[in-house]
Amino acid sequence: MSQPLTSLSGHTTPILTLPDAAQDIYDGVRDMPIISPHGHCNPRWFAENPAFADPAELLIIPDHYILRMLYSQGVALEDLGIGVPPEKRDARAIFRIFANHWHKFRGTPSDAWFATTMARTFGITATLNAENADTFFDKIDAELKAARLRPQALLEEFNIEVLATTDNALDDLSHHKAARKQKLSGKIIPTFRPDSILDPKHPDFKADIVKLAEVTGQETESFGGYLEALRDRRAYFMAYGATATDHAVADLMTCYLTEKRAAALYAKACSGKITPKEAQVFYGHMLTEMAQMSAEDGLVMQIHAGSKRNTNSALYNKFGAHKGADMPVQVNWVEGMDALLNRVGNERDMNILLFTLDESAYARELAPMAGHWPALRLGPPWWFHDSANGIARYLDQVVETAGYWNLAGFNDDTRALMSIPARHDMWRRGVSLHLAQQRGRGILGRSDVDEIAQLLCRDLAIDAYKLGKVV
Amino acid sequence: MSQPLTSLSGHTTPILTLPDAAQDIYDGVRDMPIISPHGHCNPRWFAENPAFADPAELLIIPDHYILRMLYSQGVALEDLGIGVPPEKRDARAIFRIFANHWHKFRGTPSDAWFATTMARTFGITATLNAENADTFFDKIDAELKAARLRPQALLEEFNIEVLATTDNALDDLSHHKAARKQKLSGKIIPTFRPDSILDPKHPDFKADIVKLAEVTGQETESFGGYLEALRDRRAYFMAYGATATDHAVADLMTCYLTEKRAAALYAKACSGKITPKEAQVFYGHMLTEMAQMSAEDGLVMQIHAGSKRNTNSALYNKFGAHKGADMPVQVNWVEGMDALLNRVGNERDMNILLFTLDESAYARELAPMAGHWPALRLGPPWWFHDSANGIARYLDQVVETAGYWNLAGFNDDTRALMSIPARHDMWRRGVSLHLAQQRGRGILGRSDVDEIAQLLCRDLAIDAYKLGKVV
Amino acid sequence: MSQPLTSLSGHTTPILTLPDAAQDIYDGVRDMPIISPHGHCNPRWFAENPAFADPAELLIIPDHYILRMLYSQGVALEDLGIGVPPEKRDARAIFRIFANHWHKFRGTPSDAWFATTMARTFGITATLNAENADTFFDKIDAELKAARLRPQALLEEFNIEVLATTDNALDDLSHHKAARKQKLSGKIIPTFRPDSILDPKHPDFKADIVKLAEVTGQETESFGGYLEALRDRRAYFMAYGATATDHAVADLMTCYLTEKRAAALYAKACSGKITPKEAQVFYGHMLTEMAQMSAEDGLVMQIHAGSKRNTNSALYNKFGAHKGADMPVQVNWVEGMDALLNRVGNERDMNILLFTLDESAYARELAPMAGHWPALRLGPPWWFHDSANGIARYLDQVVETAGYWNLAGFNDDTRALMSIPARHDMWRRGVSLHLAQQRGRGILGRSDVDEIAQLLCRDLAIDAYKLGKVV
Repeated sequence: MSQPLTSLSGHTTPILTLPDAAQDIYDGVRDMPIISPHGHCNPRWFAENPAFADPAELLIIPDHYILRMLYSQGVALEDLGIGVPPEKRDARAIFRIFANHWHKFRGTPSDAWFATTMARTFGITATLNAENADTFFDKIDAELKAARLRPQALLEEFNIEVLATTDNALDDLSHHKAARKQKLSGKIIPTFRPDSILDPKHPDFKADIVKLAEVTGQETESFGGYLEALRDRRAYFMAYGATATDHAVADLMTCYLTEKRAAALYAKACSGKITPKEAQVFYGHMLTEMAQMSAEDGLVMQIHAGSKRNTNSALYNKFGAHKGADMPVQVNWVEGMDALLNRVGNERDMNILLFTLDESAYARELAPMAGHWPALRLGPPWWFHDSANGIARYLDQVVETAGYWNLAGFNDDTRALMSIPARHDMWRRGVSLHLAQQRGRGILGRSDVDEIAQLLCRDLAIDAYKLGKVV
Repeated sequence: MSQPLTSLSGHTTPILTLPDAAQDIYDGVRDMPIISPHGHCNPRWFAENPAFADPAELLIIPDHYILRMLYSQGVALEDLGIGVPPEKRDARAIFRIFANHWHKFRGTPSDAWFATTMARTFGITATLNAENADTFFDKIDAELKAARLRPQALLEEFNIEVLATTDNALDDLSHHKAARKQKLSGKIIPTFRPDSILDPKHPDFKADIVKLAEVTGQETESFGGYLEALRDRRAYFMAYGATATDHAVADLMTCYLTEKRAAALYAKACSGKITPKEAQVFYGHMLTEMAQMSAEDGLVMQIHAGSKRNTNSALYNKFGAHKGADMPVQVNWVEGMDALLNRVGNERDMNILLFTLDESAYARELAPMAGHWPALRLGPPWWFHDSANGIARYLDQVVETAGYWNLAGFNDDTRALMSIPARHDMWRRGVSLHLAQQRGRGILGRSDVDEIAQLLCRDLAIDAYKLGKVV
Repeated sequence: MSQPLTSLSGHTTPILTLPDAAQDIYDGVRDMPIISPHGHCNPRWFAENPAFADPAELLIIPDHYILRMLYSQGVALEDLGIGVPPEKRDARAIFRIFANHWHKFRGTPSDAWFATTMARTFGITATLNAENADTFFDKIDAELKAARLRPQALLEEFNIEVLATTDNALDDLSHHKAARKQKLSGKIIPTFRPDSILDPKHPDFKADIVKLAEVTGQETESFGGYLEALRDRRAYFMAYGATATDHAVADLMTCYLTEKRAAALYAKACSGKITPKEAQVFYGHMLTEMAQMSAEDGLVMQIHAGSKRNTNSALYNKFGAHKGADMPVQVNWVEGMDALLNRVGNERDMNILLFTLDESAYARELAPMAGHWPALRLGPPWWFHDSANGIARYLDQVVETAGYWNLAGFNDDTRALMSIPARHDMWRRGVSLHLAQQRGRGILGRSDVDEIAQLLCRDLAIDAYKLGKVV
């Protein structure tokens, strides 16, 4: 506890410094308000404004980027408090393990996000290591009790204009209701996530179809009633401010069945007698149905495709999902979106946002598709790719074919509230580096780069997510 | 109509400016004559020397890069004159729509091509926008009537040594015949494009096989007669200067069948009773036959593979092909070329040029293949990738494995005559940037970069397309 | 023969010169000892210390990078001495052909490796060409007779701490035994390469299973005896210093069968009656068995996947394997490694090193996998990709997700002893360029880059290959 954390012995935490031309652009966007149209924060935070328990719960336990790297380096998840009841966790011990291995994050986005968070929010500019672990822990822990680090205050401190959570389609949105009664400096809105009631392979499918009937008052035994119930739920979410849906798809496939065939598969799915192949077909059809409902009700449709979930069976059986063993797989976007786009892709007032984990699809499929279909826009680099070099590769590979106006700006996609400014900051620096390079080569002029920087850091997200009335 | 277009209010159209080391290389190739060995200009232009009708017909209607981007941004194709008879089009109204959306092309190659064309050919350096649209239109329209902007004069102004068109295999080449009688400053030659008489899936296959018999005087009812007719047509094209064939393949597959099997499939194809799978096999065999004929008659074989055509059914039904809905798909080049290369790939006097829309194949498949098979060369970045960053990625990913001498230089592949110098200029700048970087890192010396710049901008195209006797 | 080779007429061989920031890092690693944990040198060289016969045998005939490029440019392999008995080869004539075409290697790693070797080992800084070919030949030829260019002396001159060869699993390691009796300045160790006794598709499978029984004294008629024999052989290799196995897999697939099913397939394989599909399943199972044996005995497991061998039938029939016609193909690493990793991937003391020829897998599959599974590490850029730009792409695409500590450093993978320092030098320059860029953008600090440079150039290889007790 004696080390001063604002200086350091010959070694400061690196935070991206930019070449002059990029810095010049960055200065114009650095302090813009934050639009966070897709992420996984807990709406309860904004309804109830609790304090975070301790540094381990704040920074380590919910961060799958950190868990995965530590696990890959031989740290047992139990030693990080995973699968351990909160009351039995030793937060300080967990933080020490984290600190002992911190150097192994060098060069990863986690390193930059943590450094930015420590510097901006806690005033700590030293680099975490085994020696100063306790000093870090104590300083963070002490600050966490302060009112300024509670969720509602952070919303203001971070200058977040709008933040969308991601919510189960059956959710009663009670936290959102409660949050709306608070005086918040930014808007908190839900996002409609219906995977468990669309995909017969989802472990909760059968139970959730029953619940769907309960919460909507619709009968869900017939396919027609099921569709009505889905429409009800979408309207319910919209009433609480939702502007978008979100869909996770491992193996992307869309199709459009006759109503009779769809109804037959639905009956099979409800009875649990559907084959895996039929289940995929049914989900493929339902994605197209969702797109058609979006064409009607205006909800923006997000598709996150190509993550194979839970590839480590032993880990999944012991600790459950989201522990770092989800792996990217290839997606054939042209074939996979064919049926859906041929139903609604020519709609001009509809936005479908695509997210990939396969960078080889940026230039080959996604940019050409977004540069043609009126309804399509490209989501920003996702998951493993929202890093300094990942952002550079994304912009390098998409803008020449799709242009800037077919992009959806940035979203942080995080469940770590504290890291939101750091993640947007990395995007803003990445955008500035990209635009400086484009200008240096004469591809863009001075007024262009400033305009496009604003677009990429704010306006495109508002436009793509139809947040014009929210902000 | 009062805005002066040679200056501008605080904003000039960006045209690639280069760092000093690249500029130095660029100065040596900037004004070299143009070799255009593959493209889609209309040979009638050079035979009859017509004036272009108006700015919309010149710059917008035939350019699928422009149509696709405007369509993706919600512009209706009808409003751009597509599907509208020429006499009912309002060229000025079309040009205004184009101008209103022009900023959405920022950062795309269309932006650079247009700016280069306006500056070099029309002396206009202002950036097009809603306010100056009419001034642009009037100035371009007035110039179009001048003799200096007719095709034959442009050929000279652009310093084009040779320009290859792409012609249906059944074409009588009458425009080429007529063009040969004109005093042209550069050579116009045809390219043999036999897709419709090789691929049973082609909508014109059956009709074109009948026509093939008519134009050659061969019977095409037997497989042997069909092959003879193909040889006839190749010889006919060669008599008018053709040095190459061109083949479009969606799903690349080649094979080599027994003559009996090939003949049986041919009979099925002619009767219209061939299955899609058999049709693919037959086309795969015929590509190998074409390669063998090339080994005999010396025509260079171009293979453009991996474009899924007309993915937007509604648009295709309404407006037909080439409206921006063709999408890249993956190609397995190693498997796909296996049979063909094992027939003729070891030929030393044969050139087979491969073009891909999948950049992930550059380093994985194409460079290793070109760096082994004597008959193979890599074509330049195709379609979505002939942009500043696309050129950089291509050179970065192919030269270390294939070397420079297994490349085919550049071709513009355009149907827009006016844009040819701009497209070659982008390649020359891209080459200069690449070589300057290679020199800066000590990979190439000063004399190397100048020599390789000449190669990439002229000599390799001449060698790859066997144009030594033409230029 | 009169040209002085240490100067040149206006043209020096380029050897990577580095920008200041990179040079600064490079100075710290340039002269580090060499760790060569995977390669294909002949162990006889170190046991018997023969002189190399002549410049052609030293530099051309064994180098498939050089053969493939010359072949692609129309040189007949016979003219390079391939398929010609050594006593009938004209080394000088071969060298002249090589020199005549040398400019075609500009920009390839062969160019840099050759230049580095000539400069450092022979003091020649001129660029090879048709005019100075004989002077080069004579100078190299004369030097080859000197004691300082014999293998044992080179080991010392090159400052190689440890060099692993790759040896057939049935090898008696007699050269290794003999080498251990020499006073060598570095350690020579074998690597266990059991492809021919694991893969029923291998042409030597049946014969080698019989030999396996002979050399181990185990009966290999039963599956249990076969597994015992494999364990015996692994132990034998470990007794002579082996720390790793190596596996080549064209189409990666792993599985885990019941013992009964595995035994049945083994019986079929031994009888030669196994189908290709069953053979793949059996090999997939045996890779998992190898991984389990590694979990027990500690041998590091290397998997080189995705090379389709001998794609040029005519060349293979005439000259055999390794003549430049092996081509990369795509590998699905997530699916392909699934069964194996779910058996042993959570082991903390085990190292499995993956090598790919498909760069699109770096960021999509390999970095996420290495950043999760404790047993996995990423091998360095392989084969076509161990070049200046290839190294840059590798580091750019893997470190943000996998971090540096999940990498396996560098290995040269060469059968060309003379080129080893040049190959490590290219890696060290590439690492320095990468780290300088990371530092310039503020992602890494000064002390970070020096530490990570040491890691990447030495420590990670020692750790990944468990060479801690060897060096």
